[in-house]
Amino acid sequence: MSTAYKLGATCVTFNASGQVLIARRRSPDRWELPGGLVDPGESLSGAAARETLEETRVGVRVRGLVGLYQHPNRRILAAVFVATAVEGSPHPTEETREVRWADVADALSVLHPLYRPRLEDALAAENTVAMRVHDGSTMLSTLAVRPARP
Amino acid sequence: MSTAYKLGATCVTFNASGQVLIARRRSPDRWELPGGLVDPGESLSGAAARETLEETRVGVRVRGLVGLYQHPNRRILAAVFVATAVEGSPHPTEETREVRWADVADALSVLHPLYRPRLEDALAAENTVAMRVHDGSTMLSTLAVRPARP
Repeated sequence: MSTAYKLGATCVTFNASGQVLIARRRSPDRWELPGGLVDPGESLSGAAARETLEETRVGVRVRGLVGLYQHPNRRILAAVFVATAVEGSPHPTEETREVRWADVADALSVLHPLYRPRLEDALAAENTVAMRVHDGSTMLSTLAVRPARP
Repeated sequence: MSTAYKLGATCVTFNASGQVLIARRRSPDRWELPGGLVDPGESLSGAAARETLEETRVGVRVRGLVGLYQHPNRRILAAVFVATAVEGSPHPTEETREVRWADVADALSVLHPLYRPRLEDALAAENTVAMRVHDGSTMLSTLAVRPARP
């Protein structure tokens, strides 16, 4: 009697100044953390990086897992990752009308209520926890336990 | 182009002596950490506690999330929780032919290779990360960041 979920990934990206990458979606019009649904065969952390690049033009290196959000009614499970910006700069896209680096307090004040706790969770995390992709016998990739901030 | 996953929950339960609860499944015949699939409407941590009770007769309090395992080919996502035993004692069940408390080194040596890394991840975690259940607007339950071991 199990049930089928869609998997999502949200990315909390920091730059070298400790600012957070936020994006104002075109529809619905609201400030969010970048993210979206996992494609077939794709890893959760891969989806986090891909969606962030697609929505902000910023390339990131995902550091690790800092939270998990379950929405039983809509059957969506979203993993929250912390990431470091490695290339590009914020730029609007087809999906986003505005993208920018924000100081943490600023980000907390403008983010939609659905996303604010995800940033709070990323800030509260001292360490990431293990995130492994496997095929039943072999580990395909691993994000190990490490400090949540560089 | 998203894809549907089954959600699983694995429970790493410690007793007051720091031993780990392990179960020898009837079929396949192998030592595992208790766990199973999430029922419709059920939280991941609720599934971890329910499956542990069903498979071992030990009641647990789930402390928090310490790992996530993604199996893209079979489309299963398993969350790994740490828990504390609160009542009952290990007892075989319909699903398990043997259930016992094991010292950590003992558990690491007998666990099936699919489960050993989950225990290793639980031992490596210093803190849990946030695990939230919500309905899109309201938080229904939260497991906050806390030390991974009592």
